[in-house]
Amino acid sequence: MVEGAHSHFHPLDRGDEQNRPISPNGAPEPGRLYEVPARCGRAVRLHAGQRLTIINTHGSQVCDFWAFATVDLCEFVSMAHFHAVASKLTPAVGDGLTSNRRRPLLTLMEDTSPGVHDTLIAACDTHRYEQLGARGYHENCSDNLRNALAAIGVRVPVVPAPFNIWMNTPPADDGSISWRVPVSRSGDRLVLRADADVIAVMSACPQDLVPINGEDQIPKSVAFRVDWP
Amino acid sequence: MVEGAHSHFHPLDRGDEQNRPISPNGAPEPGRLYEVPARCGRAVRLHAGQRLTIINTHGSQVCDFWAFATVDLCEFVSMAHFHAVASKLTPAVGDGLTSNRRRPLLTLMEDTSPGVHDTLIAACDTHRYEQLGARGYHENCSDNLRNALAAIGVRVPVVPAPFNIWMNTPPADDGSISWRVPVSRSGDRLVLRADADVIAVMSACPQDLVPINGEDQIPKSVAFRVDWP
Repeated sequence: MVEGAHSHFHPLDRGDEQNRPISPNGAPEPGRLYEVPARCGRAVRLHAGQRLTIINTHGSQVCDFWAFATVDLCEFVSMAHFHAVASKLTPAVGDGLTSNRRRPLLTLMEDTSPGVHDTLIAACDTHRYEQLGARGYHENCSDNLRNALAAIGVRVPVVPAPFNIWMNTPPADDGSISWRVPVSRSGDRLVLRADADVIAVMSACPQDLVPINGEDQIPKSVAFRVDWP
Repeated sequence: MVEGAHSHFHPLDRGDEQNRPISPNGAPEPGRLYEVPARCGRAVRLHAGQRLTIINTHGSQVCDFWAFATVDLCEFVSMAHFHAVASKLTPAVGDGLTSNRRRPLLTLMEDTSPGVHDTLIAACDTHRYEQLGARGYHENCSDNLRNALAAIGVRVPVVPAPFNIWMNTPPADDGSISWRVPVSRSGDRLVLRADADVIAVMSACPQDLVPINGEDQIPKSVAFRVDWP
């Protein structure tokens, strides 16, 4: 649709503030609040036992979430494996986020929101925005994942289907999926405990062509913090 | 659980009839009926325009299905992308099987079954059978994918979440997923038209510890045929 729009794009060529890592290797300062700026992604290294709190600062922002085992990046949180192991669509408090080797890499410890999250929908990508009629490059969660990891010197072989925190895309009885605004509120938080050493990535979804991040269609920031228990 | 059970396993070491390809490079003889033996996988190369008919010979056998673009095996049919593009859980006649680059690699042309198929559940793997208490190696759809491709000299970087043809695992209103026997019948068939050159893989699911392949829990064969329109 937008021919040649991406021919010169390379994630690392953007070189702007947007891709700044939280530290050279992604290690966090415990207790410090970090922002994931609107339309951006951030990677953070967690040790087993550490807790990651993700905060919906403005209330209706979707946060795409991934996690990879630090010892082998070919092991990652996989929604299709979560469905199989948990026999349910959506993680709730107490549930592990299952890897493609069927063990929990993190466990959901707390969720102050109504618990509406998505595990069905792929991360947005350049193809998604081309199909929506965007002209030229549009930020997207798939590139945010690649950029956030590249910023700490890490590459992964695939873009797994994400855990789309606060995204409201429920399937109906007939199997149709509707695209709704989040039901989360400002300050809602999710707490995930790392069950292994992982590299977690959060993307403040840049979708501004459909109202998946709120009625105003204005992508906003989210925030996170890492704590020891 | 079964420590060391897989330490000496390598897909190509099995070297039995089970892994025999339909031809050295997976090219089919048009119109010929091929069997996918019980518990096994088979890979087949399709040219754009060709039609692949998959037949549920015995009636209640689940067939895990994958397809990879021949020109770039990093592009493959992705259920999470299908959900996003089609806004529904399950492909029906007329729907494309969307790739991770958001184009259809195949289109569903005909389905004589009631149309109950799964797009939520990961392919079974060694971890699944260990968790179910299996002793030693258990055939599984993930290894069937790798073996079927290895048998025609192909490797892929990941095991994508499959299109689980005839698998009956519907989500309920509360998001819980139930594991039911198929509602398909002997002779039911699905016809897929290739929209690009692809390598398709079918696995006759070896699950015999839960009744996902029928009440008798006896995995059976499926069959397929390739035709020009």
